[in-house]
Parts: sequence; C-alpha cells; structure tokens
Amino acid sequence: MAVPELTNTKSPRVKAAKRLAKRAFRERDRAFLAEGPQAVREALSSPGVVTELFATADAEARHGDIVAAARAAGVPVFGASGEVMSELAQTVTPQGLLAVCRFVHVPLAEAVPPGTGLVAVLTHVRDPGNAGTVLRTADAAGADAVVFTDASVDPYNGKCVRASAGSLFHLPVVTGTPVADAVARLKSAGLRVFAADGSAEGTLDDVDLSGPAAWLFGNEAWGLPKDVLELADEVVRVPIYGRAESLNLATAAAVCLYASARAQRAASPEG
Amino acid sequence: MAVPELTNTKSPRVKAAKRLAKRAFRERDRAFLAEGPQAVREALSSPGVVTELFATADAEARHGDIVAAARAAGVPVFGASGEVMSELAQTVTPQGLLAVCRFVHVPLAEAVPPGTGLVAVLTHVRDPGNAGTVLRTADAAGADAVVFTDASVDPYNGKCVRASAGSLFHLPVVTGTPVADAVARLKSAGLRVFAADGSAEGTLDDVDLSGPAAWLFGNEAWGLPKDVLELADEVVRVPIYGRAESLNLATAAAVCLYASARAQRAASPEG
Repeated sequence: MAVPELTNTKSPRVKAAKRLAKRAFRERDRAFLAEGPQAVREALSSPGVVTELFATADAEARHGDIVAAARAAGVPVFGASGEVMSELAQTVTPQGLLAVCRFVHVPLAEAVPPGTGLVAVLTHVRDPGNAGTVLRTADAAGADAVVFTDASVDPYNGKCVRASAGSLFHLPVVTGTPVADAVARLKSAGLRVFAADGSAEGTLDDVDLSGPAAWLFGNEAWGLPKDVLELADEVVRVPIYGRAESLNLATAAAVCLYASARAQRAASPEG
Repeated sequence: MAVPELTNTKSPRVKAAKRLAKRAFRERDRAFLAEGPQAVREALSSPGVVTELFATADAEARHGDIVAAARAAGVPVFGASGEVMSELAQTVTPQGLLAVCRFVHVPLAEAVPPGTGLVAVLTHVRDPGNAGTVLRTADAAGADAVVFTDASVDPYNGKCVRASAGSLFHLPVVTGTPVADAVARLKSAGLRVFAADGSAEGTLDDVDLSGPAAWLFGNEAWGLPKDVLELADEVVRVPIYGRAESLNLATAAAVCLYASARAQRAASPEG
C-alpha cells in the first residue's frame, strides 16, 4: 500500500466519510458515498467526481485496476482495515471499496436542452431502492436525463446509489426541482409529458409514443397527486391484461420507458 | 371473536404454522403461509386453498370483510395475540392476518394446454423477491402460466408469496419441473421459446413477437446456462440503448413479457 492503513474507526477521516450516510452532511459537504467495485469504477470514469478512495488490502488485490485508475487520476487512496470498512460501508458484506464523490447533478436547463428525446421524472418516490432501479432502467432505455423532484428521495442516498448500479454517473441527473418547474421545462424543450398512473383510463396502447417524451412516475403506494396529473399532457397506465391489481413502480417504469424508446426507434430507425 | 385468542407462542397450533417458514416442513405438509390482507383476500378467492386463518383483534376490526369471508367459507379462524402474530409473521410490521394455505401448483400439462399464449419460466432464479415480482408482472401481462424449474427458488417462500402481491393465486403455477421438460411441453403446445439473456446478439427489436411465446428467465447474476440457451428457439436480450451495463432480472422480465403481450394484442386486437 502506498499509504498507511487506517485502522481507527474514530479517526477524523473515517468519521468525515461515515457521516455522509446522513443527508444533512451530504448537503453540507456536497458529497456522497459510492460503494463497491462497479459504482467506484463508474464514478472514476467521470473526471473530478471521486475525491477519496478507501480500499481494504483484499479489495486492492482483487480490484488492482480500479485502485490504479484512482491513483492515476490523482485521487488519494487510503488503505482501510476490515473494521474501518465495516464502519463506513452500508451493506452487510462490503466489498472493500468505497469512494467519496462530489455531487454530480446538473441544473434542469442543462439536463433538458431543446431536442431532448426521453426523460424520466420521479416525484414523491420514497423508496431509494426503487428510485435507483428506475434510474438504472432509464439509463438502459437510453433516457437523456432523470429528474428527482423536491418531493422525492435523495438520489445520493446509499441505497439509491447502489440500486442505480453506476447509472447515477452515466446520464444527467437533476435533483430538488419542483415538479411544476420540471414539467414547464420539459414542455418548452418539445417533449410530450406523460404521467404514469394506475388510475388512468387510457393505457400505453392508446397513445402515440413515437415522439420525444417525458414520463412522470409517482409514489409507490398512491401514485401521483391530482395537481401533478393536471400538469401532464396525457395520463396513462400500463395495461393490466391479467388479474394483478397493479405493477410495482420500477416494473411499470420499465414498461413505459421501453415502450417509448422502442416506439421512437421504430419511427426513426437510423436514430 | 368466535374462538378464544391464542396467546401462547409455544402452542402446538402456532408451532405447526410457524415451521412452514421452512421449505422442508412446507414440502411435508404441502402447505405454506400467506401474510397480510391482500394475500389472504386473494387466497380466499380460490375455494379450498386456505385451511386456517390467524387474525389479531386489530386486524379483525380493520379487515372484518376478510375474516367474515373466511368464516363463510368454513375456514377455522383463530384469534392471535400480538405476540403470537409476531412469532408467525415474517415481516417486521405484520398486518395481523396470516393464512395457512394448501399448495396451489398444478401439473405442467394442465398449466400449458395447446393454445396457450404466454408463459414465463424461471430457472436458476435464486432471490425469492425477484421471483415473486416476476410472477406479479407475468400476471399483469396476462400470462397464462408461470413455471418455476427445479433449479429455482421455491414459489412458496414467504418473500416470494409477498412479492407476488396475490398473483400466486391468480394464474396456474408449476414448480419443480426440469427445464428441459418445461421447454419440450411449451414447444409441443405451439409456443415459441425465447431465452432472455444479456449476452445474446439479437434483441427484442429483431424478433417477431406476435405469436404464442414462452420466456425463459435466468439467474440474477449470471443469466442462463449454455444447455438452457440451446433449448430455446431464440436467444434475445433487452436492448440497452444507453450506458447501463444491464437491467435487473425483474425489470428485464417486465420489458420482455409486455413486449410479447402488446405485440400479440396488436396482431389480433379483438383477442
């Protein structure tokens, strides 16, 4: 190791990183934690995002390429004892790599320029695992941006970061925006705004999805509030062809986002 | 309450129900537990499935209709103290209703008659939450059956039952079948067998999904083994239009099942 191993869970450096598990400290430091080899690798692929890397000796042996990439990028790498890693990590079986990262979100106007094709908006989504899964799915579906409104969970919550499987670092993410501002911007950028809500009369099968689209996804239990439904150009639901009462949020979002992505590509195959 | 409340967590009746949390006892008794108002309501909608219902006084007050439906169906209802319910329930905040249910799975040939339109097959799926979510999604997409192969998690695992949100009781479920037997039956019933695998060259966009289809979904981490891929008529992946490395299992399954369901309906709209 290039640096002495941190073994004291009470050391100032360990304490400074650990408190980033709390939103108030993340906001103050404008920093968050990314855990595990996949997230750390993706974070390092965006220059200037990772400001510190903690690695156990085991993890350095297993993921020498990641640690080397950090060092090559000038990121300070700290050896961490197993005890220190357990103190920092939020998973039961930490994989020995944990990065302190600068906030990566961007302003709404930057994330949604004119000509944007596909955007996911999370509003009143409360479960960070769901939010991260939708972020990952939006990335897979080729979305241009994901917007977390001010009524949604923090995208930098550790569970959200982990569930996003690196996608937090792949596409522009906006956070803390009032939903009305987000919708206004999306409309002015030329996107049709669809609200996905289980109570809608019309379904995915009834609408033309070939053009630029933004999708509003709501709360896990109760969907979208009336004032948000009224902001949308269309309110649709995923059709239930069988007897299930509903779909879970991440599943419904996957069906909507892929339906848009595939319809857009079918309409302009060279895109 | 019509019956005295069970307050002793060591009583034979409580112990007999509690051990159904373990697969070996489920197999021996050919019975499993369904927890919470939604699952119990759905279980009661299939005659003869529920053999005992445990209800706290609180739950009986909140869900009188469910308890009354059980009594009307001749199901013995046992009052349960909060302590007994906590002993029986697998969730941290049990909702006070728990049913002992008979196994509901059916033979493969019964679940997949000639003319079947859409089937999901889970093989090597290990996480019960994922399996239950796929079952719920298959139900929503109008699948005719869901097959759990002998290399997959037990559909009666408590987490799977909960994640299925009642869908375990909605459509024919097969369990413990060798994957080769399942595929042979699906083909002989006239379905085209698609294997969903992230390593495939072709994608959903390259295949004709308008006909009867079965989808094979594999392990969360490593997908489908080579011998299973070779059984399929076609191996396809969900297209990744963005930078995500992959989709999670339940999300990929949702995209595939809905792509089939929507294509089948577009091909014969009156269906």
